[in-house]
Amino acid sequence: MQAGIIGLGLIGGSLGLALKEIKMFKRILGFDKKSLHQQQALSLGLVDECVSIDEIAECDVIFIAIPLDYVSSLINSFVNLRTSQTIIDLGSAKSQINSNIDSKIRKNYIGAHPMSGTENSGPKAAQKDLFKNKIIILTDTMESGEFQVAFAKEIFVNLGMQIIKMDSKNHDKHIAYISHLPHILSFSLANTVLAQEKPENILALVGGGFRSMSRIANSSPITWRDIFKHNREYLSFALNDFEIHYQEAKQLILEEKWDELEKWMKKANVLHEFL
Amino acid sequence: MQAGIIGLGLIGGSLGLALKEIKMFKRILGFDKKSLHQQQALSLGLVDECVSIDEIAECDVIFIAIPLDYVSSLINSFVNLRTSQTIIDLGSAKSQINSNIDSKIRKNYIGAHPMSGTENSGPKAAQKDLFKNKIIILTDTMESGEFQVAFAKEIFVNLGMQIIKMDSKNHDKHIAYISHLPHILSFSLANTVLAQEKPENILALVGGGFRSMSRIANSSPITWRDIFKHNREYLSFALNDFEIHYQEAKQLILEEKWDELEKWMKKANVLHEFL
Repeated sequence: MQAGIIGLGLIGGSLGLALKEIKMFKRILGFDKKSLHQQQALSLGLVDECVSIDEIAECDVIFIAIPLDYVSSLINSFVNLRTSQTIIDLGSAKSQINSNIDSKIRKNYIGAHPMSGTENSGPKAAQKDLFKNKIIILTDTMESGEFQVAFAKEIFVNLGMQIIKMDSKNHDKHIAYISHLPHILSFSLANTVLAQEKPENILALVGGGFRSMSRIANSSPITWRDIFKHNREYLSFALNDFEIHYQEAKQLILEEKWDELEKWMKKANVLHEFL
Repeated sequence: MQAGIIGLGLIGGSLGLALKEIKMFKRILGFDKKSLHQQQALSLGLVDECVSIDEIAECDVIFIAIPLDYVSSLINSFVNLRTSQTIIDLGSAKSQINSNIDSKIRKNYIGAHPMSGTENSGPKAAQKDLFKNKIIILTDTMESGEFQVAFAKEIFVNLGMQIIKMDSKNHDKHIAYISHLPHILSFSLANTVLAQEKPENILALVGGGFRSMSRIANSSPITWRDIFKHNREYLSFALNDFEIHYQEAKQLILEEKWDELEKWMKKANVLHEFL
């Protein structure tokens, strides 16, 4: 069997390394529209070979790890798929793509979202253990072929992942709060501090808190532009909800209601009782 | 020489461990108004002995690591200090305390803010390397005695710290952006997600981004209540500035201006070019 990966950045590149380790596939083929990324992927050994999209289209399983806006048109361009082929899209928002997949190849398609990543991007950011012991959410699996679901599970279990199934709308709603909102906050914090402080002051005063809170502000603007675009509806709910809790704190500070502010923080502490 | 530490939580406890390592002092005495904390500090070996405040008052150097609201009244209660004694306050907001220190003992006083900490609190959170290779800001040192400044520097250099001097108002302004604002955001995010999501969903969907962004939401509500209280003016500027950048992103999302949103994120990426 052969696996193909389209998009050889953080996710696609890490997947290439991980697939090589588990030896389920004879060859791992790759494609990236940036020739630099292909060269880097080859020199880093992320895939065995870089080939054309047409050759990738022949693989038993095709992984898609490109910005979301290009995913459904790419998948729908695979018009001559065999019924045994599987296409796994690894993007971070699922419902819009799912509704755009051509019904003729819907059974070939698996929506998947690995709950792993880093703030870095590109082939050089690839890590062979990025997926190990992480959760992967499979979305709308009722619409996929039974074989495709079983095959995808087999691959992800071999990669050491824990599988959760969810419909794509539910996925997008939850993930808006747990992943997309935090990214907006980190980017906003970075822009706030950059506008206010000179680099030398930031470097002098930085502690662990700021490092944690600004880490994901280094995430790829192209990847995240598309994620925010695809999930704008649920994201806007999450933003509105965030503002309620943020404004609650701000008002308590402005009105100097310190005991209530302490209670508000105690509520937040509850998160780490189970996380 | 003897060192005394009042407050045996994360900061005071870690300092006790670190001071024991560098062997500058014959004995490290501790006091905490919670007897449980004193017992824990002794059994963890954070200090050599727990004694009364009156005995601590005889030490060559007295470190204060308690919630900010109690700092200046505690320091001002040391009415019979020898001119050779040094009191070092380790709190995270400096200007209000500095203006409250009795002029009779102002030369004994050193305002210091170690740029280190974790989201954990209490004696059990103490780490002997918490201060190593970290920055410590000494504030308003022109008002302190020359001996006290030299002595404090000697201690912090021995602890492996890098010293920066700053006036307390400037400190409070910068730190509002780089430390206090991120804490408000993390607490707000935690409360937003806790109000929306069941624990099992959070656990199922959590990735590295959310873990980073919610880590400091586990910080001590009492410590942070006092920090926000003491720095409420600069913090409110930082909150207003944050809202400008956050709202810029929100509007771009609502108006679907994706290229501009991408540029907004690229600006944020600049932070990690020097951080």
